[in-house]
This record gives sequence, C-alpha cells and structure tokens, in this order.
Amino acid sequence: MATFDFNGKRIYFEEYGQGRPLVILNGIMMSCASWKEFIDPLSECNRLLLLDLLDQGKSARMDGPYEQAVQAEVVLALLDHLKIGRACLVGISYGGEVAQRFAIDHPDRVDRLVLFNTTPRTGPWLGDIGEGWNLAARDPESYYYATIPVIYSPQFYLSKNDWMTRRHEALHAVFSNQDFIRAMIRLTDSARNYDVTEDLHKIAAPTLVVSCREDYLTPMAEQELICSKIPNSKHVILPGSGHASMYEQPLLFTALTLGFCNTSKTEYQIT
Amino acid sequence: MATFDFNGKRIYFEEYGQGRPLVILNGIMMSCASWKEFIDPLSECNRLLLLDLLDQGKSARMDGPYEQAVQAEVVLALLDHLKIGRACLVGISYGGEVAQRFAIDHPDRVDRLVLFNTTPRTGPWLGDIGEGWNLAARDPESYYYATIPVIYSPQFYLSKNDWMTRRHEALHAVFSNQDFIRAMIRLTDSARNYDVTEDLHKIAAPTLVVSCREDYLTPMAEQELICSKIPNSKHVILPGSGHASMYEQPLLFTALTLGFCNTSKTEYQIT
Amino acid sequence: MATFDFNGKRIYFEEYGQGRPLVILNGIMMSCASWKEFIDPLSECNRLLLLDLLDQGKSARMDGPYEQAVQAEVVLALLDHLKIGRACLVGISYGGEVAQRFAIDHPDRVDRLVLFNTTPRTGPWLGDIGEGWNLAARDPESYYYATIPVIYSPQFYLSKNDWMTRRHEALHAVFSNQDFIRAMIRLTDSARNYDVTEDLHKIAAPTLVVSCREDYLTPMAEQELICSKIPNSKHVILPGSGHASMYEQPLLFTALTLGFCNTSKTEYQIT
Amino acid sequence: MATFDFNGKRIYFEEYGQGRPLVILNGIMMSCASWKEFIDPLSECNRLLLLDLLDQGKSARMDGPYEQAVQAEVVLALLDHLKIGRACLVGISYGGEVAQRFAIDHPDRVDRLVLFNTTPRTGPWLGDIGEGWNLAARDPESYYYATIPVIYSPQFYLSKNDWMTRRHEALHAVFSNQDFIRAMIRLTDSARNYDVTEDLHKIAAPTLVVSCREDYLTPMAEQELICSKIPNSKHVILPGSGHASMYEQPLLFTALTLGFCNTSKTEYQIT
Repeated sequence: MATFDFNGKRIYFEEYGQGRPLVILNGIMMSCASWKEFIDPLSECNRLLLLDLLDQGKSARMDGPYEQAVQAEVVLALLDHLKIGRACLVGISYGGEVAQRFAIDHPDRVDRLVLFNTTPRTGPWLGDIGEGWNLAARDPESYYYATIPVIYSPQFYLSKNDWMTRRHEALHAVFSNQDFIRAMIRLTDSARNYDVTEDLHKIAAPTLVVSCREDYLTPMAEQELICSKIPNSKHVILPGSGHASMYEQPLLFTALTLGFCNTSKTEYQIT
Repeated sequence: MATFDFNGKRIYFEEYGQGRPLVILNGIMMSCASWKEFIDPLSECNRLLLLDLLDQGKSARMDGPYEQAVQAEVVLALLDHLKIGRACLVGISYGGEVAQRFAIDHPDRVDRLVLFNTTPRTGPWLGDIGEGWNLAARDPESYYYATIPVIYSPQFYLSKNDWMTRRHEALHAVFSNQDFIRAMIRLTDSARNYDVTEDLHKIAAPTLVVSCREDYLTPMAEQELICSKIPNSKHVILPGSGHASMYEQPLLFTALTLGFCNTSKTEYQIT
Repeated sequence: MATFDFNGKRIYFEEYGQGRPLVILNGIMMSCASWKEFIDPLSECNRLLLLDLLDQGKSARMDGPYEQAVQAEVVLALLDHLKIGRACLVGISYGGEVAQRFAIDHPDRVDRLVLFNTTPRTGPWLGDIGEGWNLAARDPESYYYATIPVIYSPQFYLSKNDWMTRRHEALHAVFSNQDFIRAMIRLTDSARNYDVTEDLHKIAAPTLVVSCREDYLTPMAEQELICSKIPNSKHVILPGSGHASMYEQPLLFTALTLGFCNTSKTEYQIT
Repeated sequence: MATFDFNGKRIYFEEYGQGRPLVILNGIMMSCASWKEFIDPLSECNRLLLLDLLDQGKSARMDGPYEQAVQAEVVLALLDHLKIGRACLVGISYGGEVAQRFAIDHPDRVDRLVLFNTTPRTGPWLGDIGEGWNLAARDPESYYYATIPVIYSPQFYLSKNDWMTRRHEALHAVFSNQDFIRAMIRLTDSARNYDVTEDLHKIAAPTLVVSCREDYLTPMAEQELICSKIPNSKHVILPGSGHASMYEQPLLFTALTLGFCNTSKTEYQIT
C-alpha cells in the first residue's frame, strides 16, 4: 500500500490500525501477502506494519549478492521514514535473524522483541541446508520438495493434507517464477555468514523467544542459545508445531505476539 | 472489596478495570491477595475479577468436608451476581480444576478458558501427595517442607534464594494459623474424587493449556491428556518454570493470559 | 564374505563370532562396509550377521520397482540358509522398517527386536522427503545436500566438522556412481507404501525402541507410535544424536544393542 | 553373605558370579535385599557385588552424624578387602553420589561408571525435600507419603496400583522400625553438604548417565549438569520412568548396565 526509497531501491510496506507500533519481519519465502489472515487481529489495538525486505514480495530485487545486515538497515529506514521512535519487532526465521541484528545495532529503537523459529547463526548444518535449497532451485518441483518438508511438521502434513495439496499447486506456480527463485537464492546466500551469538547480550528489550518442538530447520537448541545470551528473555515452546508456526498455530502466534507486546508491565516484584 | 452470599456463605471478590471479563481462579494456597503484582496489567483492558473460593482468603470457611464441584457453583454465583453472561476463566492448579468443571457444566458462560499447571483428575499419585500434605499439616515447618519444594522448581530455588528465605518466614506464620491449615486440609480433601477426564470433550471455548517443564505436582502428561480431550485447545510449554508459574514466570503468565483472552480472532483460514 | 541365492538374486552377507545370532539390517545408504568399527564389539559374545539387502552394498541390484516387503523375505532366506531358528534383529531406519515387517510376519523367528531411528509408516511428510531425495539424485552434490543434513544433527556437524568435510568428499564419489544412485532411488521408492502401524501388535519379542532427540527424518513421535502398539516394548531416548545414531553415538549404539539382546532375563517380578 | 570391618564397623556385602567386577551402590532406602530380581542377570557374565553402605541393610548403624564422603571410603575398603583393582561402579541416586565421589577420588579404581537418577549436588531445593523427609520421619504413614510419591512416577502408580498397595503395607512395617528410620535420617543428613560439581572433570572412566523423564527428585537438569562436566560421558533418557528406574524399568536397568559395562570397545573411529 506504500513504498519508500532505500538507497535507490523501492521498499514496499503495509500499514494498518493504530497504537503501539508492531513491525513484522518475514521469513525467507514470505511477504506482506502472507499475513492476510492476521491483519485484523494484529491491528486491532496496534499500528501494524508489514514489510517486504529486499528481494521479498513487492520490494525491489537486488542485482547481486549482499549481506543480510543490509536488511536491518531497511528496518531502520522504515522506522525513520514513518518517524517511529520505538517499535515492537516480531521476526520469523530469516526475519528473526534481521530482528536480532537490528536489536543489537539499535537497542533504543526496540520496544519489545518477539522471535519465532529463528537462530543466532548460520552454522555448518544450516549452511548445508541452504546449499541444498539453492541447488534445488533449478526446477520448481525440486525446490518444493527441498524446502517444504523442512518447514511443515509431519503432524501438520497429516492433519492438513488437503491444504498441503492445494499449497503444492500454488507453490509450483510461485517456484516456476525465475525472478522469485533468483531472489530466494540471494536471500539464502545473504544469511550464509550470519552469526550474532556474541552480540546478543547487547539486546536490552524484553524478548520473547518461541521454539517449536517439531521445528527441524531452526531446532530448539538454537533458541536455547539465544535465551542464554539475551538477558531479559523469556522462552516458550509450542509442542504442536513445526518451523512454520504462524501457519501451524496461527492462534498461538497471534496470542503470544499481542500478549507479549501489549502487556504494560514487564517487571514483577514477587513478594 | 466486595462480597455476596452463596447458600448462606460469604464469598469475597475484587473487581478492577473495564472490558471483557476475566475471572481468576486461585490455586489451593492462594487468595485474592496473591495477585497484587498482577492487578495493573490484567485490568488495563479487562474487567478483572479476583475470587476467593470457599475456604480461601476472605471467603467463608466450611464446616466439614465437601466436593470440589461446589466451587464451580461459586463461580456461577459470582457471574450471576454481577450479571455477567460470559467470561474468560483463568484457572491455576486447583483453580484450573474448578475452571474445567465450570466449563463442562456451563459451556455457554465461558468465553475463553486458560488453564495453568492443572490436571483433569486426582489420580492415585496426586492423591498420595495430598495425603502427605494433610499429614504434614500438624506443624508449620512440616507443612512448609511438604508443599513448597513440590511447588517451586529447583532452578527458582537457586535463582531466588533470598526471596525463598523470606517466603519461608512469611509462610511459617501463615501455616501456624490453624484456621488456615484446616481450610487447606478441606480444600485438599475436596479434590480427592475429582475426575473430569471423560467430560472434557464438552468444553467448547477456545482453551489455552499451559504446561511447565519443571512442574512436579501436575506434570506435563496431565496437560497432554487435557489437550487430547478438549477439541479447541492449544498447548504451550514454559521450559523455565515449576508448578507456580505465575510467580516463576510472571511476565509470561500475564502475556499468555492477556494474549489468549483478548485476541479477537480464534479461527484462521490458512490459505 | 559369503553369498546365497534369493530368487535368482545374489545376496551378500558377512558373519563373525559365535553365540546368540544378531542380524543387523542396514539403513538405506548403508551396507556391510558401514560396520567396520562395530564388528569387534558386536561379535565378541555373539554370532554377528551383517547383511546387504537387495540394492545395497554387494547384493544384487534390482531391475525395476518393488515393494519393501521383499526385503523381509531376504532376511528369512538368510536365516533359513544358515539354519538359524531365532535371531535378534537390529534394524536402523529403513532396516528397522524391514525388521518390523519381519517380526510381524515371522514372530517365531525373532528373539529380540532392536529398532533405531525408524518409523512404522511412510506418511505424506516422509514421502515428500523421499521425493526430494529422488529429484536430487540427478547430480552428486544435490544428493549430498538433500540427504546429509537430514541424517546428521547440527551438533554433530559442529563437533565433527573435519570428519564431515572428509565425508563430503568420499560421498561425492559414491553419489557419482549411477549404479549406486539408481539403487538408492529404488530403495526409497520401495518404502513409499510402507505402513505396518496396524500390525505392530503382532510383534511378540521383547523390543527396544531407540529415539534420538535431534532425529529430523524419523522424529520421536514415530517411535512413540511404535511403542504404543508393540506390547512388550521399551523406549530409550538419546538426547545427543541425530538420525545416524550409530555414527553419532557409537558406544551407546553398541551398549544398547548388546545389553538388550544379551540380557538373559526380560521379565521381572517387582516385589 | 559376607562382611568385613571398616574402622570398627561391620560392612555387609554379597557376591555372585564371575567376570568383570560390578559394584552396585544403593539408593538411600535400598539394601542388598532390593536386588533379588536382578542377581541372576547381573551375575551371568560378571562378578556382581552388592553392598550395604553404612546405615543401610545389614551393615552397621552409625552413632551420630557424618559426611557422605565416608561411604566412598567404604567402597574403597570393599575393593581392597577383595583385592579388586578396578571395578565397574553402578550408582543409584544416593549411591550415584557416592559413586561420583569415589570416581573423583580414585579414578584408577574405576573401570566404567554408570549413574542412574542422581545429582552432583544437594542444592537448596533438594535440601528442603530432605528436610521434609526427616520431619515426616516421626510416624510411618507420614514418611510413606513424604517419600514414595517423589520416588515413583504417576504412570507407575496407575499401571501398578496393586503392587503399590502391597508395597504401602510392607513399607508401613519398615518405616515403623525406629532403627531403620534413624538410619534414614542420618543418611539424608549425610548428603546435605554434598557438592562435587567442580570435581567431576576428574572422572576419567567412560560414564553412562541415565535420566528419567518423570524423575521429580533428581530431575533431568541435574544429569545434564553431570554430562557437561564429565569428559567421557554418554547420556540416555528413559521416558517411561520416575526416580526408581530399577523398579519401573527393570529390563532397561539391566540392559543399560550390562551393555555399557561389558562392551569391550569404548572408542570408535568413525570413518
């Protein structure tokens, strides 16, 4: 619905509602369009900002390789563009990596931090998975089978089999789009050197870290590592979800995000 | 702050704020006074109702043994007294048992159900723990050591050692009060025959079930059983908490409660 | 070291030691050659039988598609060939599927059953992973990145990085062999319709089921399902291992296998 | 069956079978008599040594308070008495504490170390539980209800309800014995200052650490701590057991003990 310029690149974002600002940072395959079902509840008491990062959705495509850190600058540019001092950041997977980087670099701009299904680093294992995704990018079916079973849980496949079948068809079309696929490869590559583990202690905002027990892309040990490093962090586990928790557990996604971001009191004197 | 009559017994409750009604049902040793730190955040957008069940806090003491089911009638009487059609029920431990019973008997009066650290039944194991508590009730120190290590996690003992020491002193005084102790014995006994497992399927309200990984009084298998029976239930695990999650993780207690009760949208079409 | 004929196909096996027979059934990419480090301890008190299933190692290649059930007949043929009445079966992943099928069809031939990292069925999720493997089979690097990160845990990647690098080189050569790759595709396809869930109750032998907490190919829910169906089953979890538990935790693999197979007493009267 | 003198105190032990020595160190309430069902399988290929520590079973009662460290000297005296150079030590709970202390002080005397349901320290939480046990020691029923529900899992209570009922009667008689109860109090007190956390790195023997998911007396975090400190340790979790794993999972107790102690090869070159 709106755009702004970031170093000559067009950045697309959408804005809904009023109240404490809530910025959602997408996972790697996602875009503003992914949030259709969530706009109403997330904007009911909040100023909701959906953002397509570089190489996502309706934002500009990049010409060559780049480091993921530039995406944190995009977030800063959005806040500056809208003259928002502090916002709650909600990051999913790749978006959670960007959110961690942003919260480290700009602690004064972060009100609350919510991290779903993310990691503080691209280790050798996750690096190999990314390599496999990029090699599979040459045809849509390979890309589907390389990425989707790592993103959705076995249980979700069983309980939502019809939906998964329809999604397969829809994603076949998406993954046939060479522009999309090349952007995906660049996004994947941009996270290759990502590692903020040693800087996480600089994050000051109250932080909610959400793990999913069936997340086989960013497994629970990664979020335990995040929690061990961010001083003011709280940890929650969703037993009935894989990596795509916003789709597998949409009500919990909404409830956790709104509950943690909107609670007025974060410090309790237990007496 | 207010009372009403329930079959000749005085029931004490407190009321704060405005908005969607939120009724908190106490764990066995708790009372309205336990919620001091939570009143502000829980009443910011909600009509918060704290309630002392029979034999709790400032409500009437009972003369002899009774079944826990009567406590669900107390909740009904509160809603009728205040002419509240539907409310969100938040039950902790014993209060969660009462909440389940109420939601089974009066599904049309429950808007959302939130269950922290509770069980659908008093099995032989939990029954033996209760027996041990009642035998230890003859002196305050025995009662302290019988109940407190089952309620707080080893990690909380380590990280809040000073607070635990002060709490020991405070509870020594409380447990020296024979009136309190006799009420505790009756409350414990009232749950002896509790078992709603086969009726849980009647609960229609969206339900959030919270487990704590270090809960050694109502362990996670109990909440998994609840979730397998309530059709519209969602399950969340707090890895860093024992049975007393409201004290061990107060921010998560508040965030989960407010997030789940106040989210406008509970059904999502994932497309 | 030895072969026998199975319906005109050559089956290769190796035999070591004396004592209670122990038959190892390989995971999908494995062969007799995978067990070099284990031969000594596993044959110290046992008659150890390593077996290449059809399309594995030095056994015959198949001409076209087949059902996995034929592999259970290979196991039967091996026992008949050696005139072994009953044996302990140890199955890993695909070999565990074969072992379950065999124990269902020939309960009188199974002494003890040990199942590592396996599943009772190829559900839609595992089916999609297999599809992805087969699509990646067109070049060795794609096959490496499609299969290896699902088999080894992130922690193993970190702690054994040098070993993983050497293994990458070795596997590149293996995966460049078209004969090997076509056999892998057939093996994967042979398990597509596998589902013994409803027959598991027929397994009478004392059964040890081993789960690994970081197993993202046959996750723990699958082994919980197995244990819920096999009457005389025991469940153990290895927290520090991915799918390839024999390589990630070789000492525990050996200890669990020998301990469970060689213990003389399986029924205990607790008094 | 045999005794020896330890500083003027009689120490009772039993010896069965031949082979690699296996010394079992009892949990706090246990004695040589607890192992009746296990003698056959554990002595089939091993020289099995059952030992009553001071204040246990048929060994001498102590006159006053002592530190648990003296029990490790009893173990040393047993090995010296029998002229056994190195033995496998299997310690359960309190016996596991003694085993850790012994392995730290006498690394050259330990062949393999197996630790079931134990802890490296008596922290404030476990200290409070011990305090509660000692206060409950004044009458047999209080002692029963204080100790038994912490030792057996809810699931075991459900599945072995008849056995638990008979056990209640038997233990009532045991707990009515003042000599036994006073010994129990001293044993509990002897562990009050126990903390070997900072010395665990000195343990050189291959070590198997067994956690039980329903162990609410020495919860899994304690064994994770042990594993993080002992260099050559392996960790296994039994999901279907409480603290008394030898009774709840006797076959797994035997299989794990024999498998880990008798495996000839503990180092594997994964190639």
